[in-house]
Amino acid sequence: MENNSKQEEDQVVTPWEVAAEKGGKIDYDKLIDKFGCQRLDQSLIDRVARLTGRPPHVFLRRGVFFAHRDFNDVLDAYERGEKFYLYTGRGPSSEALHLGHLVPFMFTKYLQDAFKVPLVIQLTDDEKCMWKNLTVEESQRLARENAKDIIACGFDVSRTFIFSDFDYVGGSFYKNMVRIAKCVTYNKVVGIFGFSGEDHIGKVSFPPVQAAPSFPSSFPHLFTGKDNLRCLIPCAIDQDPYFRMTRDVAPRIGYHKPALIESSFFPALQGETGKMSASDPNSAIYVTDSSKDIKNKINRYAFSGGQDSIENHRKYGANLEVDIPVKYLGFFLEDDTELEHIRAEYGAGRMLTGEIKKRLIEVLTEIVERHRRARAAVTDEMVDAFMAVRPLPNMFS
Amino acid sequence: MENNSKQEEDQVVTPWEVAAEKGGKIDYDKLIDKFGCQRLDQSLIDRVARLTGRPPHVFLRRGVFFAHRDFNDVLDAYERGEKFYLYTGRGPSSEALHLGHLVPFMFTKYLQDAFKVPLVIQLTDDEKCMWKNLTVEESQRLARENAKDIIACGFDVSRTFIFSDFDYVGGSFYKNMVRIAKCVTYNKVVGIFGFSGEDHIGKVSFPPVQAAPSFPSSFPHLFTGKDNLRCLIPCAIDQDPYFRMTRDVAPRIGYHKPALIESSFFPALQGETGKMSASDPNSAIYVTDSSKDIKNKINRYAFSGGQDSIENHRKYGANLEVDIPVKYLGFFLEDDTELEHIRAEYGAGRMLTGEIKKRLIEVLTEIVERHRRARAAVTDEMVDAFMAVRPLPNMFS
Repeated sequence: MENNSKQEEDQVVTPWEVAAEKGGKIDYDKLIDKFGCQRLDQSLIDRVARLTGRPPHVFLRRGVFFAHRDFNDVLDAYERGEKFYLYTGRGPSSEALHLGHLVPFMFTKYLQDAFKVPLVIQLTDDEKCMWKNLTVEESQRLARENAKDIIACGFDVSRTFIFSDFDYVGGSFYKNMVRIAKCVTYNKVVGIFGFSGEDHIGKVSFPPVQAAPSFPSSFPHLFTGKDNLRCLIPCAIDQDPYFRMTRDVAPRIGYHKPALIESSFFPALQGETGKMSASDPNSAIYVTDSSKDIKNKINRYAFSGGQDSIENHRKYGANLEVDIPVKYLGFFLEDDTELEHIRAEYGAGRMLTGEIKKRLIEVLTEIVERHRRARAAVTDEMVDAFMAVRPLPNMFS
Repeated sequence: MENNSKQEEDQVVTPWEVAAEKGGKIDYDKLIDKFGCQRLDQSLIDRVARLTGRPPHVFLRRGVFFAHRDFNDVLDAYERGEKFYLYTGRGPSSEALHLGHLVPFMFTKYLQDAFKVPLVIQLTDDEKCMWKNLTVEESQRLARENAKDIIACGFDVSRTFIFSDFDYVGGSFYKNMVRIAKCVTYNKVVGIFGFSGEDHIGKVSFPPVQAAPSFPSSFPHLFTGKDNLRCLIPCAIDQDPYFRMTRDVAPRIGYHKPALIESSFFPALQGETGKMSASDPNSAIYVTDSSKDIKNKINRYAFSGGQDSIENHRKYGANLEVDIPVKYLGFFLEDDTELEHIRAEYGAGRMLTGEIKKRLIEVLTEIVERHRRARAAVTDEMVDAFMAVRPLPNMFS
């Protein structure tokens, strides 16, 4: 018992820090218990498939999105004919996104297409300005650069509103920030986020900014008269603390609690001990990497579960539990049969690490090339169009 | 010594609480020492008169505005031909203003006229929503009602921008809020404002909102390209904590420290132990009081320094130090000669309390009637005009 609780303490998952227990992996079961969210089980995945008339997204089939809060309530309402809206976001702290950054956006695009619902995407340039000590101007520039990558994921401009906090905070949005802030004590945010007295008050002020998009009245140009509209938030599970807070506040200010659908972290090339790190360029594949970069990074850095000699590999097979190329294929290789084949053959030692890496390089190069082409086609006018404060007349159709 | 520091502890002056030492008056000398501001001395008053070519305002002559921070620097710059802008504000927590509320606005109007400079007036409806547990809508309604009273003080629409935080926070203003918040730790605001862990985070977030108008870039429609413009803030001294914080931050984000000119508190009818209280309608003369109300309140509640019998009064004279009618005349009776006459005659016992009160009733009735007429003439269109986000092309001329 003592050992267990020690383990739990060693695993840290907050919006600013993700660290597994020393030498181990993130224990997602423990995280679900600690955060108090629910496991996304097969019956819920089947229900999504039935309601949308589409096969479930690979991130659902493979358990990348593995936890939720009240997602079933959103589906109940949807089945009754009530629509909802999607809300996701990004903190624009770096020039280029890596593959892990794309995960929530790829999944959100699937949800938008499958459910035919509007989507708001928050770029928290204010947060990054405050946490990363960037200037306001640099944070805004990064927000706009990141918006291009997000748009390149294929979102539907007739159903998508992208906004930067520095541009959009004010009016109804600011009123909701104040309504939220009134409901949360300093002690509460310290408990949730672990701020200290030496942290600046910008940090203390920020949680209501990320909470506000959970409420439809923060977007009067989209949802006037629709205060009862539900919100579904696809995000990585490290964002859960913000929305635990938001869900506490929601009924007190007259709104539905936002529902969540939460992903695990995309592992670093070096192994599955946390999120990828923006400060180590060799820990991740970036959407700006050339095919040569991808090849080099996978071959040199992707942690292999294969054995140390061909003889041993043929004899014992690969350890799939720690093998990064297989993990990455689990995210991005669409074909279930091929993936199963690879897992079986590689696990039995009949396929070698080199073959797996070669296949992964092909898969990722294609994704990154496709992204690069899509991003190159994103003009400033398109960014302006997505970020314009405007009604979306056909957002529910 | 011990007694002294005890005394100092007992006097509380914060933006939310003003209380003298038990049974005593606010000790303004101690306040100047504690806050670290400077006394507004006769040479500075003479300088204002010389620079503006006008007699100093009665609130300067009589020491109502008694303290300052860097006011001399503002005058130095003004003498070199550099203009400045004025910033004052109000927390709209009540329907009707009392005479104490008018003091900073009457003085600010004088400064605007005398120096011919632009003025921004912040209505902190967000603050009152958070501190007084008003709804957003009620705070906004009060802000607009209060704006009418402020406009009735005679401000020049071609040089005045009035804004409510719920309307105006956003854009450049929000960016400055973030820049300010980054420079202030939680421990610092606890030291300045005395927040506790059980206070909601809206309170912790608010100081940057009141600080932001001190910097010209918060008003791009007025001051674009004028980042070097100085700001002078006329206010009651209980607002000093906000601007101590602001002045600490200013050089770190590239602006002049705002200068301050600070008033003492307008005393309650019952005596000079603090500010007037909005919760006790008989503690103050409101601008909505009828002449009958004024007469009744002065006669019934205005604390008299006169003796308890005519005989004793004729013998000992009135105690002018505690006499509220004389204090009030000091604020509002323009004629220095008449005031001196009253002080001499009343202090010597040759005038009776009733005569002083009668004269005060005349003076206040005239002021309140004039205000009532002016306020009745303020249309919704005029409020819109003052509150429109617009350039003011002739604001410095």
